[in-house]
Amino acid sequence: MDIVLVYPEIPHNTGCVARTAAATGVRLHLVEPLGYSLSDRYLKRAGLDYWPLVDLVVHADWERATAALALRSERPVAERLSLFSSKGGRSLFEVPFAEDQILVFGREADGLPEELLDAHPGARVRIPILPAVRSLNLAASVCLATYTALERSGHRFPNPEGIHARDPRMDLGLGAADVARRE
Amino acid sequence: MDIVLVYPEIPHNTGCVARTAAATGVRLHLVEPLGYSLSDRYLKRAGLDYWPLVDLVVHADWERATAALALRSERPVAERLSLFSSKGGRSLFEVPFAEDQILVFGREADGLPEELLDAHPGARVRIPILPAVRSLNLAASVCLATYTALERSGHRFPNPEGIHARDPRMDLGLGAADVARRE
Repeated sequence: MDIVLVYPEIPHNTGCVARTAAATGVRLHLVEPLGYSLSDRYLKRAGLDYWPLVDLVVHADWERATAALALRSERPVAERLSLFSSKGGRSLFEVPFAEDQILVFGREADGLPEELLDAHPGARVRIPILPAVRSLNLAASVCLATYTALERSGHRFPNPEGIHARDPRMDLGLGAADVARRE
Repeated sequence: MDIVLVYPEIPHNTGCVARTAAATGVRLHLVEPLGYSLSDRYLKRAGLDYWPLVDLVVHADWERATAALALRSERPVAERLSLFSSKGGRSLFEVPFAEDQILVFGREADGLPEELLDAHPGARVRIPILPAVRSLNLAASVCLATYTALERSGHRFPNPEGIHARDPRMDLGLGAADVARRE
């Protein structure tokens, strides 16, 4: 499973998504341009001391992200995409998810680019909300979608006893800029 | 379904939970003491313009919250509780949820009071996370738990077409202090 944030703008949200990625072991991809620097202090703060646990990859654009994601499974990228949108699509609770699913989320203000959504009309997924609400918070949406997709893909969640064991890498004071790699 | 935040401390998180409550139509209860004023500007900002859509109740303490929650169903409160904890309990994906479930979340720093957890040992619910991670962000946890509980209780999510229709009350500039009632 992969989480992809396309053009994220608010560092606090990305930091909170990083915490979800650390908690689940799911790889987090950021597609540039970003609305912040990877050394932003709010980004670091929202991710707490979890950054060294985050499998973080930054891509210069969607094409490069697609090329990197293609190497993660034998199935074509187009068959693995779930494009989250508040503007229609099938309900999160009605679509199937596979182990190699790619969960893609757009910018806080206006969501995924129309051309990306239009290129994959069957891949649109919507979190059900009441009509007066435009959308959920991005980080909350990602957490909900990631756990739902993992659970529905048959994922066996680790740590069935709920044990806590601190990882010594968390004492190094690392942030996103220290752990990100480019692909 | 009811969401209860016991002694919440960070206004941004409560504002984000309010957005989830507005999106789902689930009542939100806050149990004092709170770590912020209901007129806090970060609380208002994080809830965006959704505050008039939030069914918000503030309780002076857990006993008064329990008394108010008792009136919401014929089943006793103790049978309806899901006490979320990062310190053990059954997995979110392994427990049943009913329509009258009460989803209870503790303070960001240290979770629910030990005496509350100890009083209802069978009610503990845990979101599965890798051992090195202490917990998820509170607002993300509430969003995940609320949607999972609704879906598993057989809830029919409204707005199957994903239509957006702005509510005129959202133009009034209201915040939590304007819409909260005390019980």
